[in-house]
Amino acid sequence: MPKEHKVQIIPLGGLGEIGKNMTVIRYDNQMLLVDAGLSFPEDEMLGIDIVIPDYSYLLENKDILLGILVTHGHEDHIGCLPYLLKDLDVPIFATRLTLGILQSKLKESNLSNIKANVIHPRDVIKLGVFRVEFIRVNHSIPDAVGLAIHTPLGCIVHTGDFKLDHTPVSGAPLDVHKFAELGEKGVLCLMSDSTNVERAGFTKSESLVGEMFDNAFREAQDRIILATFASNVHRIQQAISAAVKTNRKVAVVGRSMVNVVAITSELGDLDIPEGTLVDVDEIVNLPGNQACILTTGSQGEPMSALTRMSTNDHRRVEIQLGDTVIISASPIPGNEKSVSRTIDRLFKQGAHVIYESVSGMHVSGHASQEELKLMINMVRPKYFIPVHGEYRMLIKHAELAEQLGISRQNIFVAKNGDIIEFTRHGAALAGKVTAGKIMIDGLGVGDVGNIVLRDRKQLSQDGILIIVMTLKRSTGEIVAGPDIVTRGFVYVRESESMLDDAKEKVCLTMARCRENRITEWAVLKSQIRDVLGKHFYEKTRRRPMILPIIQEIE
Amino acid sequence: MPKEHKVQIIPLGGLGEIGKNMTVIRYDNQMLLVDAGLSFPEDEMLGIDIVIPDYSYLLENKDILLGILVTHGHEDHIGCLPYLLKDLDVPIFATRLTLGILQSKLKESNLSNIKANVIHPRDVIKLGVFRVEFIRVNHSIPDAVGLAIHTPLGCIVHTGDFKLDHTPVSGAPLDVHKFAELGEKGVLCLMSDSTNVERAGFTKSESLVGEMFDNAFREAQDRIILATFASNVHRIQQAISAAVKTNRKVAVVGRSMVNVVAITSELGDLDIPEGTLVDVDEIVNLPGNQACILTTGSQGEPMSALTRMSTNDHRRVEIQLGDTVIISASPIPGNEKSVSRTIDRLFKQGAHVIYESVSGMHVSGHASQEELKLMINMVRPKYFIPVHGEYRMLIKHAELAEQLGISRQNIFVAKNGDIIEFTRHGAALAGKVTAGKIMIDGLGVGDVGNIVLRDRKQLSQDGILIIVMTLKRSTGEIVAGPDIVTRGFVYVRESESMLDDAKEKVCLTMARCRENRITEWAVLKSQIRDVLGKHFYEKTRRRPMILPIIQEIE
Repeated sequence: MPKEHKVQIIPLGGLGEIGKNMTVIRYDNQMLLVDAGLSFPEDEMLGIDIVIPDYSYLLENKDILLGILVTHGHEDHIGCLPYLLKDLDVPIFATRLTLGILQSKLKESNLSNIKANVIHPRDVIKLGVFRVEFIRVNHSIPDAVGLAIHTPLGCIVHTGDFKLDHTPVSGAPLDVHKFAELGEKGVLCLMSDSTNVERAGFTKSESLVGEMFDNAFREAQDRIILATFASNVHRIQQAISAAVKTNRKVAVVGRSMVNVVAITSELGDLDIPEGTLVDVDEIVNLPGNQACILTTGSQGEPMSALTRMSTNDHRRVEIQLGDTVIISASPIPGNEKSVSRTIDRLFKQGAHVIYESVSGMHVSGHASQEELKLMINMVRPKYFIPVHGEYRMLIKHAELAEQLGISRQNIFVAKNGDIIEFTRHGAALAGKVTAGKIMIDGLGVGDVGNIVLRDRKQLSQDGILIIVMTLKRSTGEIVAGPDIVTRGFVYVRESESMLDDAKEKVCLTMARCRENRITEWAVLKSQIRDVLGKHFYEKTRRRPMILPIIQEIE
Repeated sequence: MPKEHKVQIIPLGGLGEIGKNMTVIRYDNQMLLVDAGLSFPEDEMLGIDIVIPDYSYLLENKDILLGILVTHGHEDHIGCLPYLLKDLDVPIFATRLTLGILQSKLKESNLSNIKANVIHPRDVIKLGVFRVEFIRVNHSIPDAVGLAIHTPLGCIVHTGDFKLDHTPVSGAPLDVHKFAELGEKGVLCLMSDSTNVERAGFTKSESLVGEMFDNAFREAQDRIILATFASNVHRIQQAISAAVKTNRKVAVVGRSMVNVVAITSELGDLDIPEGTLVDVDEIVNLPGNQACILTTGSQGEPMSALTRMSTNDHRRVEIQLGDTVIISASPIPGNEKSVSRTIDRLFKQGAHVIYESVSGMHVSGHASQEELKLMINMVRPKYFIPVHGEYRMLIKHAELAEQLGISRQNIFVAKNGDIIEFTRHGAALAGKVTAGKIMIDGLGVGDVGNIVLRDRKQLSQDGILIIVMTLKRSTGEIVAGPDIVTRGFVYVRESESMLDDAKEKVCLTMARCRENRITEWAVLKSQIRDVLGKHFYEKTRRRPMILPIIQEIE
């Protein structure tokens, strides 16, 4: 009996979370990767900088990995590549801007010799058994694409991150004709962006933001300071256009935005009239109604330019009475408090801040329910996998698909690592591969695990108390110490008597152990921990980490 | 010349923040306090349990403090009283339910002998020179009142937390007649709740939630698990009524909700038909369509009942396929992520979760813009002080008042500690008193300060590295150690060679110091810290706290 051919879709990241998108498409012994992103640490991942997917499955199968298809240049789709490409030498396929952003990132990691291939929407490439079409979509970064991956068992459509913008700032609307054509010919499986499935209706067009900018820039009698995401090139374009219309010069402040403006100006993605961009030192000397500052920090990130301005801590820009600050973004879940704190501080510095979601200064880059329905109905897939979303969003997206007539058993609400397997006879979950989080802390990739995080957690709550003593080996008597050092526990000067009592208790404990001929350090330490833990909990209701350290001399 | 009489309003908490409300009203040498609340710690206050206002001004003036007026029973209005009443013996005036909740709180702090006075809406009391009227308002807890404090220089109206509910679940709407009467007679100053000033329109009636409950309870084929704030007695009443209508028994789960149901049942605030309430052990054995569980945890609080259910970690309730979970609350800013995580986990356990703000399962307890305008126009104050809000909300509320014709110089956007002083000739800021945050950690009141928090922060990010050695006093040679202990820094088993290198560097440093006859410990330690700090930053790009400990023997 000949072996049955199989197509497998294996999400390694992006399911049950917003972030670290990474999906394997496999046909027998050939495979492709779609995106390789990072995510930002959860609150309880203390000290962690970023998180990437566990890609050991890719390393185990690197000989059959034919290429990496990148849908767009956001961190949650490209941020893992600096790590992955150190371990794998595999060709990358992406649009111009996506590659531009990626290559500037890779340069920082000393990775310059990658096999980069520029593609354009409607390009078709062959990779082994696969034929891949790139399809234009709208998103909050230009040059975003979805994918049609043709396999011998049928076509898999991956939307990437998308919305449908009938009046985009540049380029054309999402390629409805291509999606419709694919649907007409027959699609095996659709993977679609679930980010905004909780929102009814249609996501508004990016160009509406431009109209709001025009109004706000006209009304402002004084300087405009506008904060948005560095990668939102259309937004930056619209801010620059509004500045030009109101005879303002523009200065760009904040490293990531300076970078993006440099890359996109070079690639011709930004239309900036000669003489519009000026240095920030020049802008602060212009009359207020001729000045516009574009900056980062729309999420209240601690080190960002806008946050520093709000705390009067920016090297070059000082908020002045009369400044209009526009926050052209909505807070990403988790950032609500830092954003409101920044707004409060800007008001205190005398700025007028436009931040409300009703102000129209921001629209989302992701499709709402009506666009999601349109996508499903255009593509008419046999199977449906909601992707790019937290678990409740995947569930809602599945419900939406069911309402549109896709039968429940043809919808897979999957988890990272699940193998969704297609044969000529049907589709089913077919086991799991390794998937998970790799935490990155400084240079350490994956060296911080649960024990280290648990310790950081305890340290952050009640601090640490270290008790040190030196014993004479022959007799076990204490020849130095016990000394107590604390950090993050109590203010020591006000707690001297409590700490002196603690030392006394340690001496008593050690004496008792000597009497009972207990000499193993592990036992001694454990008794000290118990005695001190009880002592300090009674006195303070806190549980600092207690660390007895014993040294021994001859 | 006779001394000029003065009225002073001194907010000690609640301005520029949501939380720890506390306001002094002073006339010459007599004063009243309105509310004494707590707030919850900001993210960067690691390990802190709660925060209370610095009330040293009250202690300095305790001899002239005539009474504490409490507007309602929420923590941000009563939570400081267990601390304050240990230091001050002063009569309390509050409504029945507010006192009931307060007294159960005080009992936990072993404070039972307080001078409690029950008041009712429309009661008028005399306290020294002051005449105080209590005015019924609607809020998310029953028995809430606003205040009219009559002074010889005019009447001060404090709204407390309020909304206007034309169809309240019990009791009557906010006492528009009293507020209108005060406005007609003339009000010196209005202090009004700014929480919802960013919302247009009118806050919806609590009874709409009841209709939504009725629908959801009817539609559910299986168990209902409903989470809300323990203190929202009207909400609990409506859930119980919906359960009764659909022939469900009700079990209450979660300590704070069990407490509130006990207090309010005793006071007659809850109308529960005989036989409706059953024990949770009984409810889990009933058929699903006869069961309703009311519970805490609507904010995703880590130790709460709903959160434990979502992680399958609750002692008595297990989520089952078919359960409908209703989250009847919206996330308090800062809790968004923990709430969504709880929702995701409940979905994963197989529950159907109703949580969206569009579902109508929650309405706010605070007035929106139209109600705020109504309040200002009814009371027609000469001066206006927006209270109970973060800075941007106070600014917005001030703008609203200005639109209604209160002149800008009669509006005070104040800070905690400001003295707003009224005389026969006008009003002005007249200096400051001590105001601030007292952080409570376990039993410690104010003993955790910036140094301790800074240490906790550093510990939480990169952990700690302790290096211990024992020196011989006469020669300075190392007789034990150096030993290295780390916590929260790296996974030690994978970092042995890096730690061994570090020990060697310490030995070299010590040898060099001995050669140069450096013996002061402070210098030795500082050199060790420098050498190791550099070493570990190069190897890991992390900056653990480095703690050299030296002991000495003869």
